[in-house]
Amino acid sequence: MSTFPPPLSGSAQDETAELRPRFDESGLIAAIAQDAVTGEVLMLAWMNAEALQKTIETGRATYWSRSRGEIWIKGETSGHIQEVTEIRVDCDQDAVLLKVRQTGGACHTHRESCFYRRVDGGALSFPGEAD
Amino acid sequence: MSTFPPPLSGSAQDETAELRPRFDESGLIAAIAQDAVTGEVLMLAWMNAEALQKTIETGRATYWSRSRGEIWIKGETSGHIQEVTEIRVDCDQDAVLLKVRQTGGACHTHRESCFYRRVDGGALSFPGEAD
Repeated sequence: MSTFPPPLSGSAQDETAELRPRFDESGLIAAIAQDAVTGEVLMLAWMNAEALQKTIETGRATYWSRSRGEIWIKGETSGHIQEVTEIRVDCDQDAVLLKVRQTGGACHTHRESCFYRRVDGGALSFPGEAD
Repeated sequence: MSTFPPPLSGSAQDETAELRPRFDESGLIAAIAQDAVTGEVLMLAWMNAEALQKTIETGRATYWSRSRGEIWIKGETSGHIQEVTEIRVDCDQDAVLLKVRQTGGACHTHRESCFYRRVDGGALSFPGEAD
C-alpha cells in the first residue's frame, strides 16, 4: 500500500507541484477516463491510493471496484485494457483525469463509452444505436 | 425537491430508457463537465436530485456544493456559466456527463479547466503555463 502526502489547505492545494490526492472518507478518488485520440469521455471509476500508485507506476489504468471491494486492473479479464498516456489532477486533487488508449469497449456492456445514453427530459435515448 | 424513479437491478439499469439516477448514500451523483466545442474535460462536481432536475429544466449547469451544503448554479456569482448542450448518463446511472458551452474559466482558479496539472511520477507540472 502506497502513501501520499496529505492535502494542503485552501489555495496551497490548488497550486502545489506535489501530488497530494484528497481521498474521500472511503479512501477513494474519482477517476475519469478519456480517449486520448478522440477526446470521448469513456467512463468514471474510483481509485484508492494503491490503484492510483499502480496506475502511475504501470501505465495501465487500475481502479478500485466498489462493488467487489478489490483492486481492478481494467481489461485484466476482458482484454479491454487502457494504456494511460497522461494523468491530470484537478484543483483540489479529489479527481484525476486519465487520457487513455482504449482497447475494445470501455463499458462492461461492450459499448465504446459508458455514456451511451442521452437524457431527453426524463427519458433516455441511445444515439447512434439502431432501434 | 424532485424525485426520480429508483434504479433497476443488474443489466436492466444499463438498458432502460428511463432516467433512474443512482444517488450515493449522501444523495449525490458525479457530474463531469466537458467543453462541447473542444472536448476538453473541464471539471468534476456533484449533483443531488434537485440539482440534476434543475440542470435538465433550465439548461444551466447546476451542482450541489459539498463544502457549502447548498445548490450552486455554476457561474451565478462569477458569471462563468455553463450552457448545457447535452446530458449523458452512464451505464449504471451513477454519473452524468454534461456537454457545455463554457463562459470564462470553469475552474475557481480562473483557469479554463480544473485539470491544469499533469502527474509526472509523484510531482505535478503545469503544462502550458509559464514557469
